[in-house]
Amino acid sequence: MPSLLLIGTGLVGGSFALAAKAAGLFDRVVGSDRDPAALREALALGIVDAALEGPVEAVLAAGAGPRRPRFEAACVAVPVGDVAACVQAAAPWAGVAFDVGSVKGAVVDALAPPPANYVPCHPIAGSERAGPAAASAGLFRGREVALTPAPDTDAAAIRTVRGYWERLGARVVVETPAAHDQRLALLSHLPHLVAFAFMEVAGRADTMAGAGAGFKDFTRIAAADARIWADILRSNAANVRPYLDDLLETLRRFAASAEAHAETGDSDLRERIAAAAEARRAVDADEP
Amino acid sequence: MPSLLLIGTGLVGGSFALAAKAAGLFDRVVGSDRDPAALREALALGIVDAALEGPVEAVLAAGAGPRRPRFEAACVAVPVGDVAACVQAAAPWAGVAFDVGSVKGAVVDALAPPPANYVPCHPIAGSERAGPAAASAGLFRGREVALTPAPDTDAAAIRTVRGYWERLGARVVVETPAAHDQRLALLSHLPHLVAFAFMEVAGRADTMAGAGAGFKDFTRIAAADARIWADILRSNAANVRPYLDDLLETLRRFAASAEAHAETGDSDLRERIAAAAEARRAVDADEP
Repeated sequence: MPSLLLIGTGLVGGSFALAAKAAGLFDRVVGSDRDPAALREALALGIVDAALEGPVEAVLAAGAGPRRPRFEAACVAVPVGDVAACVQAAAPWAGVAFDVGSVKGAVVDALAPPPANYVPCHPIAGSERAGPAAASAGLFRGREVALTPAPDTDAAAIRTVRGYWERLGARVVVETPAAHDQRLALLSHLPHLVAFAFMEVAGRADTMAGAGAGFKDFTRIAAADARIWADILRSNAANVRPYLDDLLETLRRFAASAEAHAETGDSDLRERIAAAAEARRAVDADEP
Repeated sequence: MPSLLLIGTGLVGGSFALAAKAAGLFDRVVGSDRDPAALREALALGIVDAALEGPVEAVLAAGAGPRRPRFEAACVAVPVGDVAACVQAAAPWAGVAFDVGSVKGAVVDALAPPPANYVPCHPIAGSERAGPAAASAGLFRGREVALTPAPDTDAAAIRTVRGYWERLGARVVVETPAAHDQRLALLSHLPHLVAFAFMEVAGRADTMAGAGAGFKDFTRIAAADARIWADILRSNAANVRPYLDDLLETLRRFAASAEAHAETGDSDLRERIAAAAEARRAVDADEP
């Protein structure tokens, strides 16, 4: 009876468990969560079938859990800063282990060397919501999942984990941790940093009455989970920094262009905006 | 037969004409647009019933148009930089005149004094789409419309225009041009500036493959019309600047907090993110 060890029962981990059980990948999900309330909720929602109580590293190290189980797979779905320790603890108990964290280099470095049956993963799916109640079986359908195996990662483990994601309807891309972290710094981490900073500024205003659809779209990601995102922004700060510096300089140039108009009656503002709008429209046009 | 003079047949103007005709406010819409192709499209789509060919100021000044009409209302839906001239030209031909521009102070100042039958309006509705084909009769339902009358604006004109918007399902708020422009600098103009600058940065990257839902929400407004937005950012640059300076400084503090962690093992990043997330969630909770 193939069973899954799920460490972290929130939005992404919970969604993997629901989707994988629906697809028939596992018969049984044994869950662990550092938050006992989340674990109870995951049990009540049918995301997990059994619960490992207590810190997962200690429970597994003691050989406890329901009858010293060996799991077919372990899914580590915890904040990036906790991934390495959980992978280290879970990998010996599972055929394959994988995580779903948004930063890969820091985890691979911390494991040094990573267990051969550990496949670093990052499904580019999620939302500003968090917790077991936000989990859904369809979260990964049509989404991209990045795999960033180390040179010594077992090829069979990679095939197995790739197969899980593909069964859930995701597109798998394989890349290095460094390439992944640089790409996501621009596509996800900098936008979150900006949205958080923007909401700090907006929170200082007298009112946000009249916020329209544009404001809500622009700031939606700022409602994300603070613990998860503090870890991501810390772990990938070195990759975010060059893009942030570019953005700060670009913002200064945009503002200068807007302000120059009053004096000179001319600016390159319209052309800059047109190019930016073109780049944004191309993102939708590139949809697979 | 009450008729509407529509100057500018794009997303917002076209939507007003469709909605107003559907609500029975006018029997007939006479349209004008500096872009002859847009005017033909508006005619083909039934947004306007008749077209004034040529520059609207010249056509009206010459007393031309279909049998020297006197319109019940004139809706000026053009880029902010063109509003004052169009209002000046249209107001003598209409019972009431109003515009839909996103910046109010610059227009009121340019008119100095504004015609008594001109009611400055700003419906906080729209999208990143543009042109007659994007117009829809339901655009204003449940949305806020700001009215920023001058001290000498005719009270009956304010009542009439307010009544139009309310018939279309909008909530009307009345405020000064200065209060409006400051509020929108934060709620709309700065977010657009940031989204444009971000897309300029992203456009320099090798790839945007793997852009997720968060990226798309965050950057959606960057696909907006360049002519409209260059005018807005120029006209309201003075109000955007203090918020932009605050954002630049806040971004620096966020980045420093993310980077400090590697050295000190501690930072206030999680607390800052949690406060920002709380502020964002409050925006949805405040929904009427």
